[in-house]
Amino acid sequence: MFEERYAYYKKAVEKQLSEYLENKNIEPLLREAMAYSLLQGGKRLRPVLALAANALIVDDFNECLPLSCAIEMIHTYSLIHDDLPAMDDSDYRRSKLTNHKVFGEDTAVLAGDALLNYAFEVAIDNALRFPDNIWNHMKALNYIASAAGATGMISGQSLDLNKNNLTVDGGYISSVHEKKTAALIMGALKAGLQLGSPTNKQLEAISSFGYNFGLAFQIVDDILDITQDSITLGKDANKDIENGKQTFPSIYGLNTSKTMAADYSEKAIGALDIFGDKAWFLKDLSAIYLNREH
Amino acid sequence: MFEERYAYYKKAVEKQLSEYLENKNIEPLLREAMAYSLLQGGKRLRPVLALAANALIVDDFNECLPLSCAIEMIHTYSLIHDDLPAMDDSDYRRSKLTNHKVFGEDTAVLAGDALLNYAFEVAIDNALRFPDNIWNHMKALNYIASAAGATGMISGQSLDLNKNNLTVDGGYISSVHEKKTAALIMGALKAGLQLGSPTNKQLEAISSFGYNFGLAFQIVDDILDITQDSITLGKDANKDIENGKQTFPSIYGLNTSKTMAADYSEKAIGALDIFGDKAWFLKDLSAIYLNREH
Repeated sequence: MFEERYAYYKKAVEKQLSEYLENKNIEPLLREAMAYSLLQGGKRLRPVLALAANALIVDDFNECLPLSCAIEMIHTYSLIHDDLPAMDDSDYRRSKLTNHKVFGEDTAVLAGDALLNYAFEVAIDNALRFPDNIWNHMKALNYIASAAGATGMISGQSLDLNKNNLTVDGGYISSVHEKKTAALIMGALKAGLQLGSPTNKQLEAISSFGYNFGLAFQIVDDILDITQDSITLGKDANKDIENGKQTFPSIYGLNTSKTMAADYSEKAIGALDIFGDKAWFLKDLSAIYLNREH
Repeated sequence: MFEERYAYYKKAVEKQLSEYLENKNIEPLLREAMAYSLLQGGKRLRPVLALAANALIVDDFNECLPLSCAIEMIHTYSLIHDDLPAMDDSDYRRSKLTNHKVFGEDTAVLAGDALLNYAFEVAIDNALRFPDNIWNHMKALNYIASAAGATGMISGQSLDLNKNNLTVDGGYISSVHEKKTAALIMGALKAGLQLGSPTNKQLEAISSFGYNFGLAFQIVDDILDITQDSITLGKDANKDIENGKQTFPSIYGLNTSKTMAADYSEKAIGALDIFGDKAWFLKDLSAIYLNREH
């Protein structure tokens, strides 16, 4: 049942993303580069989270689908820029050459910029289609913008460049992970829920789920980076060690990191109780992602 | 009188921009890099245009100021990314070292991303402060997002990379300039006006002004690139020829280009007649920018 629901959300997102990329007013080479990274598969985790959060209090996902696509565009732009030679210098992503390897660095920079801008464009267009609910759309966009931006994900990436010679300890790593990964995951969940005019308690519950699930997700990511090979991951393995990055396993060791991930995951699941039976999908998702292999 | 009004707008924009950059939740190095490019002066043309368009039908600029700052953030991010080694590879901008020369390419990429995202963040925050006018704020953001994005400015930049081996003629150059420069100028003007619930005729008039002024502005830019030295320009001169870019002067020659700029500028001024006396500032601005020297 979980698999079917996940596939159902994922398919809807991918269909909609592919329609957005049919826009003939985008310069052809730019459009090709955007499509190359955006339509390449991947888990589609963030848009699925937005749709699943929305489904906790809203019956159909029509209003939320464009917003969830916007979040995937933001995630994808961040990967394109992260992979650049001046950043992580990665050659492979999702088992394919990275964007700049195919289109050159100049077009990869522009494709990333274009996806970030397009995210806001499609979300704003969508909001204008629902004038009666425009306040909630604006609030939802507010969550996403601050999660993705200079106080959220991009600050996390900047910390991750390790330029500041700060003491790197567990607290520091948690703070990087909070900003780099958990922020956008929380933003996606809150935005999806917001469209249904949630109560404050519901918003707090989804935030708590997002925070704890987001940290568990990133710890598992760190663990996979050192325990799996590049073929299983579909991207360069051991990248963190190569880039001299501190991670949960490098600070706490593998076993403690696994326990921490499990604890965060459990807390995440507990936070959803106020939504009753409707929370089954997000609860399953949290448990399944804890034990994923790539 | 023109100088005073321009300085008044510019000062208000710069004060507000500097307040936005006091946000302590932005990672310090990232914030420094954002501030380095955003608070470095420059003409502040686009935010001034937004405020001046707003003033055609609105009495005070409080609602428009954050939006005009957002447009300047978008303009600044595009310059940071344009200057990158993989793009135009420029060392100087506004008589100072470019962002990547000071902070490194990685931080420059992130600072650009952060400014683009922050633009939407502050504009959305601002919209939520005016619930009664939220529809107009959303429309205004809509104009800005499409002007700045994959169908506007970024398509222009992609065309400008000259990767497509298309025939470069006058029509092609006009289309690059329309997207690369005129689009965001039009977007700024339309957004500023939109906040005052304009009529369709008023919107058409400001669009026509923006289109013609935007092309005149870019042709003059092309002319200055070959007729002025780097010190006067505050950035590398002869960059277009060095990068093998076709421009208005390279296709039409210097004299015809000057005549074309003058014609566009005159058309721009004519389009503003329906606003009566209140249009004096934008009319003066169009005339003065035609004869600028840097």
